[in-house]
Amino acid sequence: MRILVTNDDGITSRGIQALTAAMARLGEVIVVAPDRQQSAVGHALTVASPLRAVRMEREHTSIAYAINGTPADCVKLGISTLLPYRPDIVVSGINHGSNTSVNAIYSGTVSAATEGTLMGIPSMAVSLTTFDASADMSLAAEVAYDVAARLLDLKLPAGTLLNVNVPTVDRSQYRGVKVTRQGHNAWKDGYDVRKDPQGHPYYWLKGEFLTLTELEDGDDFAVQQGWTAITPIHYELTNHAELDRLKGLFQP
Amino acid sequence: MRILVTNDDGITSRGIQALTAAMARLGEVIVVAPDRQQSAVGHALTVASPLRAVRMEREHTSIAYAINGTPADCVKLGISTLLPYRPDIVVSGINHGSNTSVNAIYSGTVSAATEGTLMGIPSMAVSLTTFDASADMSLAAEVAYDVAARLLDLKLPAGTLLNVNVPTVDRSQYRGVKVTRQGHNAWKDGYDVRKDPQGHPYYWLKGEFLTLTELEDGDDFAVQQGWTAITPIHYELTNHAELDRLKGLFQP
Repeated sequence: MRILVTNDDGITSRGIQALTAAMARLGEVIVVAPDRQQSAVGHALTVASPLRAVRMEREHTSIAYAINGTPADCVKLGISTLLPYRPDIVVSGINHGSNTSVNAIYSGTVSAATEGTLMGIPSMAVSLTTFDASADMSLAAEVAYDVAARLLDLKLPAGTLLNVNVPTVDRSQYRGVKVTRQGHNAWKDGYDVRKDPQGHPYYWLKGEFLTLTELEDGDDFAVQQGWTAITPIHYELTNHAELDRLKGLFQP
Repeated sequence: MRILVTNDDGITSRGIQALTAAMARLGEVIVVAPDRQQSAVGHALTVASPLRAVRMEREHTSIAYAINGTPADCVKLGISTLLPYRPDIVVSGINHGSNTSVNAIYSGTVSAATEGTLMGIPSMAVSLTTFDASADMSLAAEVAYDVAARLLDLKLPAGTLLNVNVPTVDRSQYRGVKVTRQGHNAWKDGYDVRKDPQGHPYYWLKGEFLTLTELEDGDDFAVQQGWTAITPIHYELTNHAELDRLKGLFQP
């Protein structure tokens, strides 16, 4: 099996190293990843400037490229142009930080897996729900291995990928995997306003993650309870429940 | 009514000027927009560097700021920090280029409206389905006015926004508005590989928009037939149809 590995924390991050080592037990690992941190880039593509690809040597990989672009760029450029063959699966991560609830729409990690899905390849994103830079990645790497090993057999429908969020708990408290839906939590955002030496303001994003509705089958709740949350997500954005009502209002 | 206007083509673009003039007929217009082109940024947020906000004078506006960030940054920073009051609605556009089908997930224009929705404000995105830089914006501006004038009365459910795509047709061929679902079209992507004067390759994204499945109630089809497509979209990404099947596979 050929596994394309990418992430949004950059090719040198601890998360992609742990993931690469885990995927090497499954098959041939190809890495195409950003050359630097690209968190919260959403599903960004680089269209107004060209991309560069630097071939690198990375442990456990047959091919590795660092790209001056976003996670979605990496998947698109890798599969369409750089690689001599199509990967069988795309695995993105291990992200530092939760991609549950609304975080999924901001996530470069998830967007890379979405791009793989758009290109017709079974794909998954893996995140460890902590921002601690020195967090133990071993549980997340094992979970990534277990899910990736089954990814082809799951026969996900076209356009659907897995968003996997692993809790930060001691092994003794870890409960296993649970299939969940996207939670309803959100950020209460604000900005830290500072002044530069010339007295001009600048704004740092800061936020607090709020529990809006505690969904018992939601990804956040599962992670809080010590489960790995596996959410099947897709990029079908239509709110179908609204279609008829709006038709009545716009096309009476 | 107070209308927050933003876009992804930048504060000086023709699209935001046409939209601002149209919205000024509805109420007080506040512009918080990127200081430069930000197309295809998806739902990116600027987290690794601080933002700057430059107050400007813009025609038809009571307050205008240019931000060194993404469309989602503009909405978040504007509403949370810069503005003295909450807007009643958020209108993003007029985008140069279609945001139908899969384009919605790459679109900075749509992401700005999504961010407004996340902050609890009725929001819409407006796009003109052409990349012609000199295209006539007047029909799109009229449609934006008509839909925005009704936006509060539509009482969209929390988390749902309108993605409005206006066709590029002569007035004589324009057919009106139609409520649609997100289409299933996608890009066949590739990269134009060039060499710099030192002989090193660089990669320009290029693509061709393909009709995968012609959905008769899809946004692309409506636009091709001369209709404005109004699609209610949300950021609920769960593929609910897959939940039970996957539960059976993962939690037997």
